[in-house]
Amino acid sequence: MNPSTEWATDAVSAHTRALIDFICTTTPADLPAAVVAESKRNILDFLGVSIGGSDERAVRIALEHVRDAGGTEQATIPVTGDRTNIGNVALMLGIMGHVLDFDDSHLPTILHGTTPVMSALLPVTEWLGRSGTDLITAYAIGFETAARTALALHPDHYDTGWHVTGTAGAIGAAAGTAHLLRLGREETAYALGMAATQAAGHREHFGSMSKSFGVGKAGSNGVLAALLASRGYDSALDGLEGRRGMFAVMGGAVHPEALDADLGKRWELFQSGLKPYPCGIVTHPAIDAAFRIRAEHHPEPADIEAIEVRVHPLVLELTNKHTPRTGLEGKFSVAFTIAAALCRGRLMPVDFAPEVLDHPDVARVRQLVRLTADSTLPESEAHAVVRTSDGRTLTADIEVATGMPGNPMPESHLHAKFHGLVDPVLGSPAAGTLIGLVDALDSASSVTEIVRHTVTS
Amino acid sequence: MNPSTEWATDAVSAHTRALIDFICTTTPADLPAAVVAESKRNILDFLGVSIGGSDERAVRIALEHVRDAGGTEQATIPVTGDRTNIGNVALMLGIMGHVLDFDDSHLPTILHGTTPVMSALLPVTEWLGRSGTDLITAYAIGFETAARTALALHPDHYDTGWHVTGTAGAIGAAAGTAHLLRLGREETAYALGMAATQAAGHREHFGSMSKSFGVGKAGSNGVLAALLASRGYDSALDGLEGRRGMFAVMGGAVHPEALDADLGKRWELFQSGLKPYPCGIVTHPAIDAAFRIRAEHHPEPADIEAIEVRVHPLVLELTNKHTPRTGLEGKFSVAFTIAAALCRGRLMPVDFAPEVLDHPDVARVRQLVRLTADSTLPESEAHAVVRTSDGRTLTADIEVATGMPGNPMPESHLHAKFHGLVDPVLGSPAAGTLIGLVDALDSASSVTEIVRHTVTS
Repeated sequence: MNPSTEWATDAVSAHTRALIDFICTTTPADLPAAVVAESKRNILDFLGVSIGGSDERAVRIALEHVRDAGGTEQATIPVTGDRTNIGNVALMLGIMGHVLDFDDSHLPTILHGTTPVMSALLPVTEWLGRSGTDLITAYAIGFETAARTALALHPDHYDTGWHVTGTAGAIGAAAGTAHLLRLGREETAYALGMAATQAAGHREHFGSMSKSFGVGKAGSNGVLAALLASRGYDSALDGLEGRRGMFAVMGGAVHPEALDADLGKRWELFQSGLKPYPCGIVTHPAIDAAFRIRAEHHPEPADIEAIEVRVHPLVLELTNKHTPRTGLEGKFSVAFTIAAALCRGRLMPVDFAPEVLDHPDVARVRQLVRLTADSTLPESEAHAVVRTSDGRTLTADIEVATGMPGNPMPESHLHAKFHGLVDPVLGSPAAGTLIGLVDALDSASSVTEIVRHTVTS
Repeated sequence: MNPSTEWATDAVSAHTRALIDFICTTTPADLPAAVVAESKRNILDFLGVSIGGSDERAVRIALEHVRDAGGTEQATIPVTGDRTNIGNVALMLGIMGHVLDFDDSHLPTILHGTTPVMSALLPVTEWLGRSGTDLITAYAIGFETAARTALALHPDHYDTGWHVTGTAGAIGAAAGTAHLLRLGREETAYALGMAATQAAGHREHFGSMSKSFGVGKAGSNGVLAALLASRGYDSALDGLEGRRGMFAVMGGAVHPEALDADLGKRWELFQSGLKPYPCGIVTHPAIDAAFRIRAEHHPEPADIEAIEVRVHPLVLELTNKHTPRTGLEGKFSVAFTIAAALCRGRLMPVDFAPEVLDHPDVARVRQLVRLTADSTLPESEAHAVVRTSDGRTLTADIEVATGMPGNPMPESHLHAKFHGLVDPVLGSPAAGTLIGLVDALDSASSVTEIVRHTVTS
């Protein structure tokens, strides 16, 4: 690609200009096979967490609102099958996809990039009648745009209190939608500009329904930006890098060169991991350690006498809740997650239910957990020692937790997670069908079949 | 009011808590007569600029989108009479009300508070079937909330590049809607929280369609926040003052005490002025000076040889576009507005048309304008000297421009502005009817008649 061709303006800064070129000109043939494969894994996982999250209270309330607001029947809300406009579907999907805190994480920036991007692209693809390959390409573009926007802003943006999934997510949603709508470069600049000037979301709302609300808004705002741009609505051309644009207003020290460094060659998608457990990623190495000890040594909960876990200091800073009383608090209690993993051998959303939190075995084991912060450890590591009443010392050393770059979640685990989320909602056969359909997505002429199978029959 | 009663939580900071009390408990009887009168002036002016802006390209494009997106018939878009959901109406009204850059300005913060607030409240009042007094009360509450949020953030927020009308406007829209929906204190906290976490808008987009887009989003986002809160959707309780809330994330040096200082006693409404000219308020003192020179001395455009205008530095920073090519650029060219005032003696939206921008007289006079930034001047002042070919030196010294606090726009000017905007769209009789209906708003049992008369017959 040559960013200087076909667009005679100097009103767009260089990195944004290259990004716009990428959004407008990337074709399916430009995607390495590994990007296609990883995209399909992420799309499947997105469907799983969305369907699995469909009965959460936040989702039910938002659905009441969307039904009352109404809208043209352009696309489909999974599970309920409501037909409404794509903005409404994107809002719902963003909430559904993020409400369990179980969607993917881009490690360098803590961006959960797939949910805002896919919540926009699934209904847009359905509405436009585009192919599975079109969706994969738009997703890869949208995710990359979101991740690179996040990198350009990181870490000051997040540290200030911005929920980067809401802010950079909207840019990615607009980029992918612009690609599907086949916008030209100037319209794409407007789509990015309108997404940027709507970008929002504060970390204050972590732990409330408004965390996932912000992700739903990222998806629907990104769609709105691209749709308006497609009709000729304009914005400033330099909405990201301009003097009063997103980076200047919402950044601190920013790195605009991240927008296009090795763009189309290095894919940030591979820095993003699927979550094996529905809680903060910082807890995952310790949970992996607990699972390994259980799998290799099968200690009975009643026999456990001591648990010592050495972790990165951030684990204690973020998830050191001692006595979780709700499922949400359970997600911020690494001791509980270790205990649940050791006692139950499973950690799915249902395992954060009150009866698990209060189960005598789990509560007893949780109280045995002793955590040590070790600042020499990377965030991906944890080292656990369990001592049992029969004198055994069981150890597990996790260097790269499951789902982190370098240790991707195996396909069997991905499928088990999907079934665990989807079976209770749609039944196991439908879940299996969806796995097959997403696996064949790059040869599907439309997403109609997938959408149809996300709906309860 | 005693903020400590009826709400036993320490999770809301004191100033926000007092603001929530004001939102929830203010009754029509709490509004001084002058507040009611000023509210009616602002509501009339809002209808005028909205109807006058209804044929702008940004509005037409947005309307195409809204029609395609569809929605339940809850309320009415003025002029076209489209019936759609209140979120859509709010989006349209926010764009319509701001697109001419002709809506009111809160001088201390450059907030255009009425448009985002009224764009939410007019459709909500229509939908709920509430009275004119209910609308006035909700408007006074919503405006006050927006203005005090803006004051709490000013000046760092605006200086950083935030369009405060988009950000604080959303908070005001949510507050007024929460009042109309009769939300309790906790729900109101959630409405404010959800508005805060959606708050957005960058000054980069000044001069493009996305400036008014951001105001439309402020209205519709504020409505969405309050509607979701009314159904039980929650957020953090302390979305404004909390550690990762709006003020911390989007402010610099902030002044949360502005939220409730003399609240209910001092009304920021009186620090807001109606605009006599459809362009940035910073240009108004200079335009007033040009009009005064024309009115007092009647110089022929061809005789003008030099124009020197001394202004606050912000005038040059914001509106120093030398060669405006479009009407929008004309609004950001103080030299053009001075020239048009001197040459034509009128400055309405039609005076920013291409034939005026390119008119030889106007173009010649524009090029004669020499601006001097004087940081000792307040923003309300301008001092102009015009030299003519017959040796005259014509001067005008404006200390408080028309429409600024201390020099409110006279009612005759308000009505002339309204007719100038509305007559071309709805005809003079309908415009006159609307003036009468808004004047009697505090005795109207509903807003149905007003809404009906905003629609072309």
